[in-house]
Amino acid sequence: MNILIIDPLSENTICRLKKIKSVKIDYFPNINETDILEKIGQASMLIMRTSHIFTEQWLEKAVQLQAVIIAGSGIENVPIDLLEANNIIFKNVKEASVTSVAEYAICLILMGLRNVYQGIKSIGEGNWEKNQLIGNEIRRKTIGLIGFGNIGKAIASLLCNFDVEIIYTNESGRVVGYDYECVELKELAKRSDIICIQVPLTNRTYQFINNDVFSNVKRDCVLINVSRYDVIAMDALIEKLKQGIFKHVYIDPIEKRHLKTISEFKNLPISFLPHLGANTYEAQERVGEELIKIMIDLETKFNFLCSLP
Amino acid sequence: MNILIIDPLSENTICRLKKIKSVKIDYFPNINETDILEKIGQASMLIMRTSHIFTEQWLEKAVQLQAVIIAGSGIENVPIDLLEANNIIFKNVKEASVTSVAEYAICLILMGLRNVYQGIKSIGEGNWEKNQLIGNEIRRKTIGLIGFGNIGKAIASLLCNFDVEIIYTNESGRVVGYDYECVELKELAKRSDIICIQVPLTNRTYQFINNDVFSNVKRDCVLINVSRYDVIAMDALIEKLKQGIFKHVYIDPIEKRHLKTISEFKNLPISFLPHLGANTYEAQERVGEELIKIMIDLETKFNFLCSLP
Repeated sequence: MNILIIDPLSENTICRLKKIKSVKIDYFPNINETDILEKIGQASMLIMRTSHIFTEQWLEKAVQLQAVIIAGSGIENVPIDLLEANNIIFKNVKEASVTSVAEYAICLILMGLRNVYQGIKSIGEGNWEKNQLIGNEIRRKTIGLIGFGNIGKAIASLLCNFDVEIIYTNESGRVVGYDYECVELKELAKRSDIICIQVPLTNRTYQFINNDVFSNVKRDCVLINVSRYDVIAMDALIEKLKQGIFKHVYIDPIEKRHLKTISEFKNLPISFLPHLGANTYEAQERVGEELIKIMIDLETKFNFLCSLP
Repeated sequence: MNILIIDPLSENTICRLKKIKSVKIDYFPNINETDILEKIGQASMLIMRTSHIFTEQWLEKAVQLQAVIIAGSGIENVPIDLLEANNIIFKNVKEASVTSVAEYAICLILMGLRNVYQGIKSIGEGNWEKNQLIGNEIRRKTIGLIGFGNIGKAIASLLCNFDVEIIYTNESGRVVGYDYECVELKELAKRSDIICIQVPLTNRTYQFINNDVFSNVKRDCVLINVSRYDVIAMDALIEKLKQGIFKHVYIDPIEKRHLKTISEFKNLPISFLPHLGANTYEAQERVGEELIKIMIDLETKFNFLCSLP
């Protein structure tokens, strides 16, 4: 059987997958849409992350496909119902990226407060702009966490000695065992000096950070999105950026397909990143471990021999 | 009497200083060397930070000077012995910047591990280089703190929930009350995944991070300097950067006078910043508070009336 892999996995993981008896690994970490459509017809299993969206056209071509595995936690780019209706198994890797994303969120929060990017850039251009780059401490500020699942909890935990106030919103209400204050989204917007978004993308979170939220944020708020591009109504955000409401905004989850749309944000206090939140060697290794476990679970179903260490 | 101020202070601090009876405040936060030499002759008191070096030429011109106050903790840019030999009072503001510098060090450490600057830059240029920008978590890494005074201790404290090993060097040996391991500089270099320097610049620390240290560092080490430019032997560093030893180096304390010398580091994995460590509104306010306290202490000596709130 053929396993088609269309996003990067760690070298070690690829090496282990190749050891599985009676499978052929087609590893194309930089594949484009046209080539996916050409190759998906031969695949019995597809392993992917977030770079591509699994479309109905893929499904039409995928005549041999029996399983789709997402090597990550976000699953919004795959039509799970449609897969299940076609008897295609769907699995994903949870948890593996939590630490990487949480540490990264702390990095972006501090960068937003301290003008670090602007400082490096200006020095690189031969200018010394210290006096225009006065920042803020995080100490004694209010951090509003939108989403209080594993990543939200991990961010709060990392901040434990930073002397900050943490408040959060959570779809299913207050989380037992945590002393932080659970509030409504509107109140979070009103009170937070820093807002950090870490929710899965679903029908309910699609563009749910919109004008209703932005019209309540404090002036000079720092906004961080380590979730998915589409949780923010970007049309509403650009207006607020033009009004000078935000000190700085960091949007991490930029995929190739977003590059065109973000050009209109030039010269505004916003920075985009190529979805680096979970992009660490450590997270990739853990993803690999989980992936191998999923393969072992699927062993009898697919009639291959994992024989993995 | 005239008080000459040649570095930025907060608006609030300037406002309070102006309220002192029988003094004239000459506030020139962006003054150049020539103008300092012209104006210093009329000054009874000089307030400065780190942008300039107090030279013998200044002293020759400063015929009325009775006091020099550094609005910061680093004092290496002022010849204290010479001032004292000329009966000029010297004071400085300690402590006020500790939190700002410590938070900033965490930011640079995480940036060094995660390729954030490169990510933003590449997206700005229309490229999407996620697969070339795989980073590392800080979790389970060894952080070597060179200098374990107030800032070193504050960095260790902020990292308390990051699940890291902290080791440190300290000029006067092990610091009582802290469980972290105190080691020799060479051992710290050998063991650390991340090295962070926060020591005052003195005769003993001038270029003390040199080839003896660099020849022991681990491959892919992240090096952060939030101390002073001259604590590192930059000639030795450039060689090691060319050899690809470091994952990334961040040098914060760049003053205008360093701009020329850093151009030879182009295209190496090193970033420079215009001394933003203590550059926050919060630290500036605390510096102002301490400055006013010093003024009150000097009140009878200088025969002015502070009458400050």
